[in-house]
Amino acid sequence: MSILGNTEIQLHPLSNYSFAQKEDQPEEDSSVPARLERLQRQYETHGMRRTVEAIVVVHVHNHPHVLLLQIANSFFKLPGDYLQPGEDEIEGLKLRLNKQLSRVLATTDGGEPLFEGADDWDIRECIGQWWRTNFESFLYPYLPAHITRPKENKKVFLVLLPPHRTLWIPRNLKLMAVPLFEIYENSSRFGNQISAIPYLLSRFNFVLQ
Amino acid sequence: MSILGNTEIQLHPLSNYSFAQKEDQPEEDSSVPARLERLQRQYETHGMRRTVEAIVVVHVHNHPHVLLLQIANSFFKLPGDYLQPGEDEIEGLKLRLNKQLSRVLATTDGGEPLFEGADDWDIRECIGQWWRTNFESFLYPYLPAHITRPKENKKVFLVLLPPHRTLWIPRNLKLMAVPLFEIYENSSRFGNQISAIPYLLSRFNFVLQ
Repeated sequence: MSILGNTEIQLHPLSNYSFAQKEDQPEEDSSVPARLERLQRQYETHGMRRTVEAIVVVHVHNHPHVLLLQIANSFFKLPGDYLQPGEDEIEGLKLRLNKQLSRVLATTDGGEPLFEGADDWDIRECIGQWWRTNFESFLYPYLPAHITRPKENKKVFLVLLPPHRTLWIPRNLKLMAVPLFEIYENSSRFGNQISAIPYLLSRFNFVLQ
Repeated sequence: MSILGNTEIQLHPLSNYSFAQKEDQPEEDSSVPARLERLQRQYETHGMRRTVEAIVVVHVHNHPHVLLLQIANSFFKLPGDYLQPGEDEIEGLKLRLNKQLSRVLATTDGGEPLFEGADDWDIRECIGQWWRTNFESFLYPYLPAHITRPKENKKVFLVLLPPHRTLWIPRNLKLMAVPLFEIYENSSRFGNQISAIPYLLSRFNFVLQ
């Protein structure tokens, strides 16, 4: 990997992975207004929210596909969530990925879940950032001029899977592998953050296994 | 700079730079159809065209701006051009930047121009790629499925300037520093490649001098 060359990324076929269902994982907030209200309450206590999300890439018939979670047969989102104050970005993203996509094997004496394949997530670099400037739904891919107190910073990381794995999907969600050509220029279906993923991935040279 | 942290990029203010005019630099092709015809002729002889372009970033009042060339008061393009077969990407981009934005100081015995400040371009990594699949104007930020013989590969590189410099602009072109907020979601004015620049830059943390 040279700083000036294009980083090569090994992708495995979707057919290498198994999918199984696990218990529901209800959304923390039941509506967008409720989510924005929580954001505002937490901002007043803890300051800017930090969110981390994963762009997990596989391939189908040699075309890259991104794993998306679908809620209620409509809204799409990337795996990940917001962090607790002071929580490490990478460890925090790994914990969210396990909560959303791994099986609990046991629970520690302290009540923490132990996940099967907890370290299977190969978290690469941050490939994009978004900024929320107000307690509203719109996020920008840059910090707008004169904004000194953003309300949320969202970072998206490239995440690769091991050659084989079972992904455990909460029963109230769907996991879909969506091809880049379907995401591209399709903000009406996927929103402006997901539809930007083809740009964020364009600099990588994918090596298909 | 850590692989997992967000790379910090030092930006200087636009007011640090001087602008001067130099002789016309006519476009090689007088129209889009003529350009596509040349692409096709060259493809038949040399194979896929390789193009390199520079995203040169400065700031105005602490908001990042990208340097764009404007032709005939309408069409915008990034500095850069296509490479000769076998030409090195980085050396080739540096030569194009000098031809477009530097002053010729002297000419070698072999007829090659010697440019003032020829090494002033701090060419960082490739931050995006585009693929042309046919002899048509549309480019994709990924290699579409089943395309085994793309006609053009365009790479865009992040390029930083020294703290001070004079940029020499061909008389038939304008050089404009355009803010990210004006480029963003404005493909009708800037085209789909330039309007994607805010996404490609989003992962960097800009440190404004």
